[in-house]
Amino acid sequence: MKILITAGGTNEKIDEVRYLTNHATGRLGKLIAENFLTLPDVEIVYVHGQAAILPQDNRVTFYPIQSVQELAQTLEMLLAEQPFDAVIHSMAVSDYQISQVVPTQAFIQQIIEESKEYPELDANELAQKLLQKSAATLPALSEKKISSQNGDLLISLAKAPKIISMIKNQQPETLLFGFKLLVDVSIEKLQEVGFNLLQKNQCDYVLANDLTTIHGTQHEGILIDQTGRYTHYSTKEEIAKGIVATVINEKRK
Amino acid sequence: MKILITAGGTNEKIDEVRYLTNHATGRLGKLIAENFLTLPDVEIVYVHGQAAILPQDNRVTFYPIQSVQELAQTLEMLLAEQPFDAVIHSMAVSDYQISQVVPTQAFIQQIIEESKEYPELDANELAQKLLQKSAATLPALSEKKISSQNGDLLISLAKAPKIISMIKNQQPETLLFGFKLLVDVSIEKLQEVGFNLLQKNQCDYVLANDLTTIHGTQHEGILIDQTGRYTHYSTKEEIAKGIVATVINEKRK
Repeated sequence: MKILITAGGTNEKIDEVRYLTNHATGRLGKLIAENFLTLPDVEIVYVHGQAAILPQDNRVTFYPIQSVQELAQTLEMLLAEQPFDAVIHSMAVSDYQISQVVPTQAFIQQIIEESKEYPELDANELAQKLLQKSAATLPALSEKKISSQNGDLLISLAKAPKIISMIKNQQPETLLFGFKLLVDVSIEKLQEVGFNLLQKNQCDYVLANDLTTIHGTQHEGILIDQTGRYTHYSTKEEIAKGIVATVINEKRK
Repeated sequence: MKILITAGGTNEKIDEVRYLTNHATGRLGKLIAENFLTLPDVEIVYVHGQAAILPQDNRVTFYPIQSVQELAQTLEMLLAEQPFDAVIHSMAVSDYQISQVVPTQAFIQQIIEESKEYPELDANELAQKLLQKSAATLPALSEKKISSQNGDLLISLAKAPKIISMIKNQQPETLLFGFKLLVDVSIEKLQEVGFNLLQKNQCDYVLANDLTTIHGTQHEGILIDQTGRYTHYSTKEEIAKGIVATVINEKRK
């Protein structure tokens, strides 16, 4: 059995020294890998963020990545190369990438100057028009370490490509597990948002979880299937075992 | 001897899941602590970022911090409580803190509307005026996990307080070692920028180093004194030993 696991978080680079990231540790991904490795004839391809803690086993091949862009390229290459029985996409992927960093004052000045070119538009229409234009025309800071002498700054974030939507397009036959992390919501909301993710990206299952219920090995999560029904888990170990058991079951069908 | 060491990096929170940080590992701070611990009668107070690797010794008391704000409060408290023979401020402190996160379109719209209130100003004057005003009047996103449904975003960064400038104000008698990291510059530039930092913040010494010369244990750095002269080091171990020897020398005077 060949399994592709993604784990940990992504880094979006601001300059050579600074970056934007998230609190993902990779602990759950590691545990999922370890549970798959209790089965005979398993090979794991493990794509991970730079700070992720890693499983230790010579049946695991590692692909470290930093940015969403690098993740997209790595997955595209791997999915083109070989078929996977299942893809467990547990990585916390940034929804945003950095389009540019600019001094706040220069940005405001640019907006004011450009707005004069369209006297017929109201503020709302103008904002829509300038949204793309300003980003394209402003000279971004490109220092290797952006100096604080630049004064107040704006980091402009654009939506990153949705990695999860690529997977079934490239490998329709694989069994895809998506993950959704929310913060401080009800189980109903978890189910609703998780199920939406599942439908939108052709997932077979989605593990939806809530940051406020994650403490050490305690980790609540619901594994939602294509009918919208779900199984509830209370620890990382239960989630990992639940996912492995689900893959085995599906493969028997 | 009582030594205060800061090490690792800071995290500036965007929401409950995301943050802005830097690549500091805390390795040099750990090595400096370990070198001080080879001396008799040493106590170390160790203020560190959450991802920093730590020295292991029961003569070290740890104070973990996340943001620049927390670092400032922790140092203020520690410096008020007890006198330190030396302060080794090796932490990579963010120059910026996050003032708000806003949808790009709302920000542009706000600028356009506010600019109409000052028809007599040119774009440059107006930008200066709106710089503070817009930040103050725009409703910031305050979701626990900011949804990507907000579209393109702007993270507005304001300069963080300069932590290093607080230290001698609170403890004029302590021996202060500042640190300055630059990227891909000449030794002359390192010396110039490091010496400026020293003079501006009443440091006794500044260790200036360049990211492009840091690989594993290799780590070039110059330790600049109050006359502007410097000693050159080539490894983390040399830097750590050099700093400890300098403190011992100064205490003998």
